[in-house]
Amino acid sequence: MEFTVQQIAELLQGKIEGDNAAKVSTLAKIEEAQNGALAFLSNPKYEPYLYTTGASAVIVSDKLELKKPVSAALIRVSDPYSSFSTLLQYYQAALLASKTGVEEPAFIGSGSEIGDNHYRGAFSYIGNNCKIGANVRIFPQVYVGDNVTIGDNTTIFAGAKLYSNTIVGSNCTLHAGVVLGSDGFGFAPQPDGSYKMVPQIGNVVLEDDVSIGANTTIDCATMGSTIIRQGTKIDNLVQIAHNVEVGKHTVIAAQTGISGSSKIGNHCVIAGQVGIVGHITIADKTTIGAQSGVGKTIKKSGTIIQGSPAFDYKQNLRALAVFRKLPELQRDLEALSEKI
Amino acid sequence: MEFTVQQIAELLQGKIEGDNAAKVSTLAKIEEAQNGALAFLSNPKYEPYLYTTGASAVIVSDKLELKKPVSAALIRVSDPYSSFSTLLQYYQAALLASKTGVEEPAFIGSGSEIGDNHYRGAFSYIGNNCKIGANVRIFPQVYVGDNVTIGDNTTIFAGAKLYSNTIVGSNCTLHAGVVLGSDGFGFAPQPDGSYKMVPQIGNVVLEDDVSIGANTTIDCATMGSTIIRQGTKIDNLVQIAHNVEVGKHTVIAAQTGISGSSKIGNHCVIAGQVGIVGHITIADKTTIGAQSGVGKTIKKSGTIIQGSPAFDYKQNLRALAVFRKLPELQRDLEALSEKI
Amino acid sequence: MEFTVQQIAELLQGKIEGDNAAKVSTLAKIEEAQNGALAFLSNPKYEPYLYTTGASAVIVSDKLELKKPVSAALIRVSDPYSSFSTLLQYYQAALLASKTGVEEPAFIGSGSEIGDNHYRGAFSYIGNNCKIGANVRIFPQVYVGDNVTIGDNTTIFAGAKLYSNTIVGSNCTLHAGVVLGSDGFGFAPQPDGSYKMVPQIGNVVLEDDVSIGANTTIDCATMGSTIIRQGTKIDNLVQIAHNVEVGKHTVIAAQTGISGSSKIGNHCVIAGQVGIVGHITIADKTTIGAQSGVGKTIKKSGTIIQGSPAFDYKQNLRALAVFRKLPELQRDLEALSEKI
Repeated sequence: MEFTVQQIAELLQGKIEGDNAAKVSTLAKIEEAQNGALAFLSNPKYEPYLYTTGASAVIVSDKLELKKPVSAALIRVSDPYSSFSTLLQYYQAALLASKTGVEEPAFIGSGSEIGDNHYRGAFSYIGNNCKIGANVRIFPQVYVGDNVTIGDNTTIFAGAKLYSNTIVGSNCTLHAGVVLGSDGFGFAPQPDGSYKMVPQIGNVVLEDDVSIGANTTIDCATMGSTIIRQGTKIDNLVQIAHNVEVGKHTVIAAQTGISGSSKIGNHCVIAGQVGIVGHITIADKTTIGAQSGVGKTIKKSGTIIQGSPAFDYKQNLRALAVFRKLPELQRDLEALSEKI
Repeated sequence: MEFTVQQIAELLQGKIEGDNAAKVSTLAKIEEAQNGALAFLSNPKYEPYLYTTGASAVIVSDKLELKKPVSAALIRVSDPYSSFSTLLQYYQAALLASKTGVEEPAFIGSGSEIGDNHYRGAFSYIGNNCKIGANVRIFPQVYVGDNVTIGDNTTIFAGAKLYSNTIVGSNCTLHAGVVLGSDGFGFAPQPDGSYKMVPQIGNVVLEDDVSIGANTTIDCATMGSTIIRQGTKIDNLVQIAHNVEVGKHTVIAAQTGISGSSKIGNHCVIAGQVGIVGHITIADKTTIGAQSGVGKTIKKSGTIIQGSPAFDYKQNLRALAVFRKLPELQRDLEALSEKI
Repeated sequence: MEFTVQQIAELLQGKIEGDNAAKVSTLAKIEEAQNGALAFLSNPKYEPYLYTTGASAVIVSDKLELKKPVSAALIRVSDPYSSFSTLLQYYQAALLASKTGVEEPAFIGSGSEIGDNHYRGAFSYIGNNCKIGANVRIFPQVYVGDNVTIGDNTTIFAGAKLYSNTIVGSNCTLHAGVVLGSDGFGFAPQPDGSYKMVPQIGNVVLEDDVSIGANTTIDCATMGSTIIRQGTKIDNLVQIAHNVEVGKHTVIAAQTGISGSSKIGNHCVIAGQVGIVGHITIADKTTIGAQSGVGKTIKKSGTIIQGSPAFDYKQNLRALAVFRKLPELQRDLEALSEKI
C-alpha cells in the first residue's frame, strides 16, 4: 500500500509543508525511519531526529517552530500522536481487510453458516452447525469444532483451536495457538490411588471485544461456562481453568494462571506470572503485582497486593526491605543476647 | 442426542415420578438447567432449586421427601451424584464416538497402520511406519511424525504435535497444542562463548491412561526416553524437560516445570507454577504447594513442601507469618537495643 | 539407516576389535543398549556395563585395557565422547536431510521464492512474497505469513506459526508450536475504563543460529523489531514481549517471561520461570537464578542474582537461611524483651 503525502494529509485534515507528492508505504519511528516511511514527532525530546530523519514525511504539531531545515515533507496537525495512532489503526485494519475469500483446501462441516466478507485460510477447519458472523477472519490451520458461535468482525490467527460449543463474541482477537475449551483438570481419586476423569461437558464463552494472546489456554467448564466478559484483554501463555469467570475490562499479563471456579472482578489489573488459587473471588479494580500467589478472596475494591502469598503491596515492600537485611538482624539479636 | 426420561431411568435403573415421555438433550446444573435439560440433586443445600428448576428431569435420591410440588420429572436412584457422573461419562464417550472415519484431505505416510473404528480429522498428518491402535481419535491438524506408536482408545485433540519415535499408550488423552518430543534444551558452551547443540535423539514415552493438558510440552530424551508412567495426569502449559521420568498416578497442575533428568515418584501431587530443578528425585506421595521451587531431592515418602526454595509446609507457613511482621520485628529489636 | 562397524570405524578413523561386519542402526547408552545399537564408553564409572551390554558395538578409548571378554565389537578412538557426539550430529543431520520435497497439499502464495533442496510438509502454509533460503525444512502445518524472510539451513518443526513480516536467520531451529510475531500486549486505557488496542505493526527478527523451544511466544514490536541476536537459545514456553532485544549467545530456560522493551545482554544465563519487568537493561554475562523476579536494570557485567525480587545471589542465600528460622528468631527476641 502506497500513499502520497497529500492523501495522508487529507485523511488527517493536516496542512502540508514540502513535497505533497512524496510517497509513503510504511510507518516507522522517527529515529529509525527511512525513505518511503511516515513518522511522527510528539515528544520534544525527539525533535533533533526531525532534522536528520530519513523519513519521507513526518507528522508534527501545528505549533512546532523549526530550528533547522527539514528534508522530509511535514504534515501539521493539532495532536501528532493521536493522528499517528489513527493511521496505525487504519493500517492494521487495511492489512486484515486485504485477507478475504477462501483459500483451498479449507474444511467446513454440514449445517455451518458464515457471514459476508470473511476470510478462511488454507487448512482451516470449521465443524458442523457453526454460526459465524460477518467480516470474520479465520487464518490458516485454525480449528473450530462443532456448534461454535463466532460474532462479527472477530479475527482468529493461525492455528488457534476452538473446541466444540465455544462461543466467541464480536470484535474479538484470538492469537496463534490459543486453545479454548480443552478439558478442565478434574480427576477424582479412586480407592486404589489412581484417578478417574471427571467428564467436562461445559464450554468457554468470550463476550465482545475480548483479546486472547498467543498459546493461552482456557478450559471448558465442568458444566456451564468458563466466561471471559466484555473488553477483557489476556496476554500470551495464560492459563484459565474450568468454571473461572473473568469480569469486564480486566487485563491479565503473560504466564498468569487462574485455578478452577475463581471469579475475577471488573477492571482488575493482573501482572505477569501471577497464580490465583481456585474457588476464590477477586473484587473489582484489584491490582495484583507480578509473580504474586493469591490464596484468599479479595473483598475490597481497589485493593493492591503483591507477594507469594500476596498481601498488601506496601506492607509487602516493607517486609521485603527487612528480608534482605535478615542476616544483619540476626547478628544484632545475637549480639544483644550476649550482652545481657 | 435426545433421550426420554424412560430411557435414562432404565439406564440408571431408577424409578420415575412424573412424565416418563419427557425429553432431555443436555445435562446441566440444577440451578441453571432449562427446558430439555437433565439435572441432579445430591447436596441437600441445593434442594430449594428442585422446586424452581427449569430442568425437564432431575435425578434425586430414592430417600428424598418432597416438600413442595415439582414440575420436572424425577428419576429416583440410590446415589444421584454417582448416577449423574455415569451419564456424563456416557455423554462424553458418545460425543467422541460420533467422530469416525476420515475427513479429507488427511495425510498418511507409507508403512503406517491404524486400527478399526478410528477418526482422522481433516489436515491431520501421520508420517511413515506408525502403528496406531483401534478406536483412536485423531482430530484435525494433529501431527504424528515417523515411527510413532499409539495404543487403543487414545484421543488426540486438534493440533497436538508428536515428533518422530514417540510412544503413546492406550486410553490416553492429549489436548490441543500438546507437543511431545521437541528437542531437550542441551547446548554445550564453546570456548568462544557460543553454544553448540547437543543432539537429542531419544523419544517420549507415555504409558497407558495418561492425560496431557493443552499446550503442554514434553521434550525427548537426549538418548533413551522421557517417560510419563501409567495413569498420570498433567494439566495445561506444563514443561517436562529431557530425560525426566514421572511415576504412576501423579498429578501435575498447570504451568509447572520439571528440569532435565529429574525423577518424580508415584502418587505425587504437584500444584501449579511449581519449578523442579534438574537431576533430583522426588519420593512417592510427595505433595508440593503452588509456586514452590524444589532444589533438592526429597527422600521421604509423603513429604509436604512449599516455598521457593521449598521446605516443610508447616515450617514455611510459620516463617511466612513472621515475614509479614518483619518491619515490626526490626523495630522491636531496635527499641530493645536502645534500651540497653 | 543401517551401518556396519567397518563403516562407522572409517568415519571415526578408529580401530576395530571384533566383528567388523556387525550391523548397527541406532545409538544408545551403554547401560540400555540392545542388539543393533552402537554405544560409547567414556566415563570409567560405566566400564562394568562394557562387559554386559547388549550393544552390537561400543566406541572405547584406544588406551582402555579390557578386564574381561566383551561380546560387542569395539571401535577404538582417542576421545570416545567426542566421536560419539560427532555420530549423534551426523545421525540427526541425516534424519533431517531425509525429509525433502513437497508433500501435497501444501500452500504457497504468490511471489514467494524458496531455495534448493527444501522440504515442505503437508498442510504447511507460506504466504505471499516470502524469501526462503536453501536447505530449509518446513514441517507439516507450519504457518508462514506474508513477506517473511527465512535464511538457509533453518528448520521449522510442525505447527510453528510465523506472522507476516517475520525475519528468521540461517541455521535456526524453531520447535513445534512456536509463535513469532503475535501482537504485543498494548492497550490504552480509555476514560470509561475500557481498553483500546494500540496497533502493533512491527515484526520479530531472529538472527542466525537461534533456537526457539516448543510453544514459546515472541510478540512483534509496536513499531520496529523484537530482536533475538545471533546464537541465542530459548527453551520451551518462554514469553518474549514486544520490542524486547535479547543479545548474542544468551540462554533462556523454560517458562521465563520478559516484559516489553527490556534489553537483555550477550552471554547471559537466565534460568527457568524467571520474570523480567519491562523497560530495563540486563548487562552482559548476567546470571539469573530460577523463579527470580527482576525489577531493576543490571549494569555490571557478570552479576549473579536470585530471588523475587532478585538481588545478589549470595546475599539472597544468606537471607533465605535466616528466613527459615524466623519463628525461632521471633521467639528469641520476645524472650529477650521479657528478660529486660
